[in-house]
Amino acid sequence: MQSCGNDYIYINCFDTEINSPESLSVFLSDRHYGVGSDGIVLILPSDKADARMRMFNLDGSEGRMCGNAIRCVAKYLYDNNIVRKKDMAIETMSGIKRLKLYTQNGLVSSVRVDMGKAELNPKSIPVNLSGESIIARNVVIGDKEYSITCVSMGNPHCVVFCGDVDLLKLSEIGPLFEHNPLFPDRVNTEFVQVLGENNIKIRVWERGSGETMACGTGACAAAVASVLNGYCKKDEDILVQLLGGDLIIRYTDNTVYMTGDCKKVFDGEVEI
Amino acid sequence: MQSCGNDYIYINCFDTEINSPESLSVFLSDRHYGVGSDGIVLILPSDKADARMRMFNLDGSEGRMCGNAIRCVAKYLYDNNIVRKKDMAIETMSGIKRLKLYTQNGLVSSVRVDMGKAELNPKSIPVNLSGESIIARNVVIGDKEYSITCVSMGNPHCVVFCGDVDLLKLSEIGPLFEHNPLFPDRVNTEFVQVLGENNIKIRVWERGSGETMACGTGACAAAVASVLNGYCKKDEDILVQLLGGDLIIRYTDNTVYMTGDCKKVFDGEVEI
Repeated sequence: MQSCGNDYIYINCFDTEINSPESLSVFLSDRHYGVGSDGIVLILPSDKADARMRMFNLDGSEGRMCGNAIRCVAKYLYDNNIVRKKDMAIETMSGIKRLKLYTQNGLVSSVRVDMGKAELNPKSIPVNLSGESIIARNVVIGDKEYSITCVSMGNPHCVVFCGDVDLLKLSEIGPLFEHNPLFPDRVNTEFVQVLGENNIKIRVWERGSGETMACGTGACAAAVASVLNGYCKKDEDILVQLLGGDLIIRYTDNTVYMTGDCKKVFDGEVEI
Repeated sequence: MQSCGNDYIYINCFDTEINSPESLSVFLSDRHYGVGSDGIVLILPSDKADARMRMFNLDGSEGRMCGNAIRCVAKYLYDNNIVRKKDMAIETMSGIKRLKLYTQNGLVSSVRVDMGKAELNPKSIPVNLSGESIIARNVVIGDKEYSITCVSMGNPHCVVFCGDVDLLKLSEIGPLFEHNPLFPDRVNTEFVQVLGENNIKIRVWERGSGETMACGTGACAAAVASVLNGYCKKDEDILVQLLGGDLIIRYTDNTVYMTGDCKKVFDGEVEI
């Protein structure tokens, strides 16, 4: 299944046990010798929620949560009659996430995820700057001055507004942000082009991964920063265009909602 | 299935008809939104051979023949009891190819393909140089002198011997060969490092594709050129190491044999 081009192999572990998901992810994710994916996602029973997900990246490391993957997990559970609820709770390594499912012809076409509260306190993000929040703060990164806005969505984000994002040399600029001492845990950076009211286009440089087609928390952070900088409105749907597809983000005082589609590409059988 | 990392989606068309393989290949080959592959291969009945293959690249264009794909076609036919013969003939756009299948535990593990006669005449390759063959001919390409050997295996190849192929800046050098006016149909270029008697390591720049993990005709041309230049022996097995895996090439007066493995990765079902 894929959402915004972020593709994982989803394995139903309600009946099956997977012993070494780390090595399985490395083996299956290879795009020439294996099935090919960004990683694998195990769909498991939970005693705290409707189900539990565990995700493994293509290097075998375990991820805490992925806003794109969790939507596909919800679709899998609903479409396969494992959990036939349109309001669902799924356990992740980042806690229990609540989801709202939207269907077309009896199958889930898109899902809204409650991504949790946006954290603006620089100590919690973390970013080494003073104050209660970092909104449109001028800093020098590389040899250039940028106006940055910092947000944590469970992981650290630095948002920069600019002109045409297609013209950015992201592979040169991204690492300068990622490894700047301002960000002790490194940082994910979103470059945002404002297209209109409640409509932005972004490119994301993910720490450890480089440029990615779609980053759910990055879309949330960019939308939050767009509200904080007066480009978009709180409590309204904000259309965020990413390389891999579109997401709808809504920023409220209590939480950030992310809505996006999710698609099954194929079913497969593999001997392991 | 994959052979030397060259992965295609193989579709059994003995019972099913595929109406628009071009667009299907574009759709299925996408590595993020589709199944992900180098293209699709249709396995069809034939009135001239045991079966017929048609292959489509990821841009939807039809390919004439692929030495890696045809081995997987043979494995599919044998393993699925469609053609239970260890000597097989498969029809391609480049004519009927003869194959010899090797099995392990009842399943095909590797296949030898008769790739046809190596053509050395420069007019037939084509290459704009005089003489009956081009063996260790000094030419200037870019601003450097190279000693080139030219071979056609149904498509044009230019072979260059060099030191450590891992150190080559292929993305810079490859296009200089591909677009040099010496080669009116452009050219595939193999850079060959001689590792020992009958053992070479190559990197291939394919016209239109750039560097590829494995090129069957490129491995053949490199082995033929290695014999012509005295590095390897005629009528003996030559081990050719490519980025994606190993191939065994045997150059005889009548033909060139290529032997390599072929693996099923997974079975799948997709709605189209």
